Amino acid sequence: MAAHAKRLWLEEDLGDDYRWSYRVSAVLFSGRSDYQDVDLVDTPTWGKVLLLDGKMQSTEADEEVYHELLVHPPLLHHPCPKRVFIMGGGEGATAREVLRHREVEQVVMVDIDKVVTDFCSKHLTRNIAAFRDPRLQLINDDARAQLQAADDGSFDVIIGDLADPLDGGPCYQLYTQEFYRDVVLAKLAPGGIFITQSGPAGFLSCQEVFTSIHATTCSVFPGTVIPYAQHIPSFCDVWGFNMAFTDPHQVPLSPEELDSRIASRIHGDGLHFVDGSTWVGLRHLNKVVRKALQEESAVYTATSARFIHGTGNMKAAAPQT
Amino acid sequence: MAAHAKRLWLEEDLGDDYRWSYRVSAVLFSGRSDYQDVDLVDTPTWGKVLLLDGKMQSTEADEEVYHELLVHPPLLHHPCPKRVFIMGGGEGATAREVLRHREVEQVVMVDIDKVVTDFCSKHLTRNIAAFRDPRLQLINDDARAQLQAADDGSFDVIIGDLADPLDGGPCYQLYTQEFYRDVVLAKLAPGGIFITQSGPAGFLSCQEVFTSIHATTCSVFPGTVIPYAQHIPSFCDVWGFNMAFTDPHQVPLSPEELDSRIASRIHGDGLHFVDGSTWVGLRHLNKVVRKALQEESAVYTATSARFIHGTGNMKAAAPQT
Amino acid sequence: MAAHAKRLWLEEDLGDDYRWSYRVSAVLFSGRSDYQDVDLVDTPTWGKVLLLDGKMQSTEADEEVYHELLVHPPLLHHPCPKRVFIMGGGEGATAREVLRHREVEQVVMVDIDKVVTDFCSKHLTRNIAAFRDPRLQLINDDARAQLQAADDGSFDVIIGDLADPLDGGPCYQLYTQEFYRDVVLAKLAPGGIFITQSGPAGFLSCQEVFTSIHATTCSVFPGTVIPYAQHIPSFCDVWGFNMAFTDPHQVPLSPEELDSRIASRIHGDGLHFVDGSTWVGLRHLNKVVRKALQEESAVYTATSARFIHGTGNMKAAAPQT
Amino acid sequence: MAAHAKRLWLEEDLGDDYRWSYRVSAVLFSGRSDYQDVDLVDTPTWGKVLLLDGKMQSTEADEEVYHELLVHPPLLHHPCPKRVFIMGGGEGATAREVLRHREVEQVVMVDIDKVVTDFCSKHLTRNIAAFRDPRLQLINDDARAQLQAADDGSFDVIIGDLADPLDGGPCYQLYTQEFYRDVVLAKLAPGGIFITQSGPAGFLSCQEVFTSIHATTCSVFPGTVIPYAQHIPSFCDVWGFNMAFTDPHQVPLSPEELDSRIASRIHGDGLHFVDGSTWVGLRHLNKVVRKALQEESAVYTATSARFIHGTGNMKAAAPQT
Repeated sequence: MAAHAKRLWLEEDLGDDYRWSYRVSAVLFSGRSDYQDVDLVDTPTWGKVLLLDGKMQSTEADEEVYHELLVHPPLLHHPCPKRVFIMGGGEGATAREVLRHREVEQVVMVDIDKVVTDFCSKHLTRNIAAFRDPRLQLINDDARAQLQAADDGSFDVIIGDLADPLDGGPCYQLYTQEFYRDVVLAKLAPGGIFITQSGPAGFLSCQEVFTSIHATTCSVFPGTVIPYAQHIPSFCDVWGFNMAFTDPHQVPLSPEELDSRIASRIHGDGLHFVDGSTWVGLRHLNKVVRKALQEESAVYTATSARFIHGTGNMKAAAPQT
Repeated sequence: MAAHAKRLWLEEDLGDDYRWSYRVSAVLFSGRSDYQDVDLVDTPTWGKVLLLDGKMQSTEADEEVYHELLVHPPLLHHPCPKRVFIMGGGEGATAREVLRHREVEQVVMVDIDKVVTDFCSKHLTRNIAAFRDPRLQLINDDARAQLQAADDGSFDVIIGDLADPLDGGPCYQLYTQEFYRDVVLAKLAPGGIFITQSGPAGFLSCQEVFTSIHATTCSVFPGTVIPYAQHIPSFCDVWGFNMAFTDPHQVPLSPEELDSRIASRIHGDGLHFVDGSTWVGLRHLNKVVRKALQEESAVYTATSARFIHGTGNMKAAAPQT
Repeated sequence: MAAHAKRLWLEEDLGDDYRWSYRVSAVLFSGRSDYQDVDLVDTPTWGKVLLLDGKMQSTEADEEVYHELLVHPPLLHHPCPKRVFIMGGGEGATAREVLRHREVEQVVMVDIDKVVTDFCSKHLTRNIAAFRDPRLQLINDDARAQLQAADDGSFDVIIGDLADPLDGGPCYQLYTQEFYRDVVLAKLAPGGIFITQSGPAGFLSCQEVFTSIHATTCSVFPGTVIPYAQHIPSFCDVWGFNMAFTDPHQVPLSPEELDSRIASRIHGDGLHFVDGSTWVGLRHLNKVVRKALQEESAVYTATSARFIHGTGNMKAAAPQT
Repeated sequence: MAAHAKRLWLEEDLGDDYRWSYRVSAVLFSGRSDYQDVDLVDTPTWGKVLLLDGKMQSTEADEEVYHELLVHPPLLHHPCPKRVFIMGGGEGATAREVLRHREVEQVVMVDIDKVVTDFCSKHLTRNIAAFRDPRLQLINDDARAQLQAADDGSFDVIIGDLADPLDGGPCYQLYTQEFYRDVVLAKLAPGGIFITQSGPAGFLSCQEVFTSIHATTCSVFPGTVIPYAQHIPSFCDVWGFNMAFTDPHQVPLSPEELDSRIASRIHGDGLHFVDGSTWVGLRHLNKVVRKALQEESAVYTATSARFIHGTGNMKAAAPQT
């Protein structure tokens, strides 16, 4: 579809009454695993785009920002992150960013979908080296089962790079109070840090899942939970993260200390997007979102489902408790 | 793009203010020749679709109807069609239908685009046998040059299976009075018949090119020119044809005679779409179209350009003479 | 939405995987009756478009063709059509065409939706005069109930200008064998003629409802049922009609007789679209459609539902008998 | 378009290869002024949407955020903002926010388009009171001419609420070094502050106009220029602002001081979106955007056009100097 490629459009619903379309210049790969459709397309707007079940998973244009935000705040806040567990992350970019840290000795990445990891390890050029790094142990299995099977206190940082907690989706149980308390917290070593991507966090969208994930982590972790957010263009929204400390005395790094740690710990030329000043901006959320966080009472539990519906148009139903 | 394939759409403009989209379930082939983009996509609506420069060229669902209409009326009207010349037709389906006639001894098919003919001879399963038929001589060259180089009186039937006469398009010169008079008519043997696809022929669209092509053929051929038309779903319109006789005494076949010739001349089980009664319907055009044909005065000539603009939204400009 | 009107598009699904969009330059009216949404929009492609429940009902560009095809064949075939019953037809155009016949003395039009008839009688300029014609009796009620209440033998022509027989739709019962036998046939005077619009009749679409409606009328009416069809651009398909004679000896008019009756019976300058030659084309259906008509065995009855699903993508389910 | 309203979509290009569509439930107003099309539509996604030339101007869902960001930082940073000049702002929301400040005695709002201001003063319920406030002087004229005609030192705050500096657009001259130096700076009273909306400021889009407007203001104003940005969902991007101080010693307010000024100066319950902590987040831009600001050398001047092309897909051409 070279010159007339204008005519092939990938359409994604952003809501019931709201959608966007971007031109596809080539379909590079199309496959189906036991879990989902896996496609790689090329687009003039975003470069190469990885789609899982037809939904943008990551794009060449902005994946680096998302992955820096997911990985570096927790690893930089940890005094010495040697062992890291990644739930999901099959694309390889989360591992890639983790492996940039000199302290890291072992990365366990558990993604259920072998089709995705096989494909990405071959075709996503930025991530190929990460897949081959001897420090990476890639397991295609259920992340919960694997984490549960690990010895207590095994990891310095646990990263949740999972799909949103959609109703009927495979990942809901990995956002619950029980899972955080019985598995994640138990498997973290003293001083360990947990981070999870937390869905849309815009002033119009933060109550879909972001505030509930925050309330859930706050209910479990002994230390502070730091919510932060950044606009990710290909997600068409501000995206949120919750970083939970196990150490009750730990506080966010000052911008100077964060810059200093980046300089000393990260291989290469520093980070592309994150630095101390960026970090200040990321965690100073606006008044609307802060209010929503404060007022949120719904905690995800295995029995009180706060399910999220749909695809990209996530409206939280009322808690059923 | 298996299950979520709903999201990949091929969009085609049908006019400035009017377009359609159909879902693409797979992109089977994408290439580019010196002349055009060539794509084969699979769709739930039309089956496999061949696109040239992003415009539907033919679909599994209805190509047979178009090609029966283009080929069989002229071959059946000819007393004994031995030698046939096809201008264009790179897809192979026109040759396939021609080769079903027992009388046919030689088919010369001249399509400029080797990428298209190579691709279709391998991938369009319905047409593979035609490409391998020893009676077919396939030449990748300019159809005009090849026809001009032939001896006068070489062919019993000449078939124009060319793109519409768009402004700046490659095919305009093959619809002019000069070309018809100096080349087509000269190369036809006595009693020879010329047929050309003639663009949209609906009551709202027939004045784009159909009536002018009719006027042009009428101005050249000694015998009757029979216009006929049929709705082709994937073209989103009624499509027109003009069949020109060199014999001034030739008249359209009766339905009975047409049925009888189909029975005796065509290999296999008869035709899928055309028979005597169909033929009566095809050539009884409605009052609006007949009036437009009668009133049309614009003849395509090399110097008086009645150019057709755009893609699928063809509005005839005023003649410049 | 003047100059930038390009951006407002009305989208209509033509199938599950297939849709079209046309630009809307103005929304002239938007309302809702007890039965449906009623909208009138202006478009560059079709002129003014009447939408019922968001589906194109008729357009300035081609409504006249549809209505000529529905009305004039039956009225011209009747020796002297004085009393005409219209089921549906709220737009007024069917009545307009009926009233062009000099013989017509009384037209009873029964459309359930007063919002539609009120709106069209005021805003559809072509039809205003028809609504005011003293020969027209407009009743807003259920067409079946009104026809049932009429004396037997009351009408020379009964016209079904109803929505397609969709599953759950309001009109299904008006396409059944029982209704045709017990009501329509009974209310026709000797020599009476019944006509019904019969849905898409293209070679790819004719088995949705067209062939079944044909089989159903054939099972009831003593005379011949003449199926005919014509491409209607704004319906994006060929559209079918079934005209049923009560007189077992009646045959289709010759083109000459049809022309002669048009000249003598119709007010004004004759018809725009229909004449004798057009009529020959209309009723000579192609081989594929004729074969489907011959092979159709499903008759609509009140108990054996052959329901039609969806909107514009009507796939007939298997008969349940 | 009530129940089937799904089918009417407003489509907006976000780039050459990238667009979005949102469903329109009603077209409330459609007009055309000498300058532009003016439309008000209702949508399920954004509530009421004001469109100028078919481009989203503001929406019920998020206009308040944009206008708080444009108005309150400069007014709160000024020690006592009595006289405010608004360039553009015809919608009335900028004036509405300005008038919430107790210190404000006079607001001069100059918008060239009387059709827009008349319409908004009647139909945008949130802004009606502002249009009637006796402190507001509304002038329908060229903002540049009116500002030029004012006495030097007339205003404490000047607000640029203008369309983006598009090539050929009406507003380009109001973003140049000459205009800022000869008009804006001259008309500001000592300690005066200038603010301008500055286009998209995302990490992928900030070099379209945001960084150039920043460089231009920096080249003119004696004091600091503070760039800040926030995601505005209906603009489908992060949006930027540049606030320029005339006082070379002025620094940004601390969050505490900003909160205190909001409490003492603003009528009503404080602001919806902005407070001290929000303000910290807004002005801590990320590393990519900060780098682009630092490296930007292109200053808008009357003769060296750095034109911005298109609509919503603004790519800066190379400076022509």
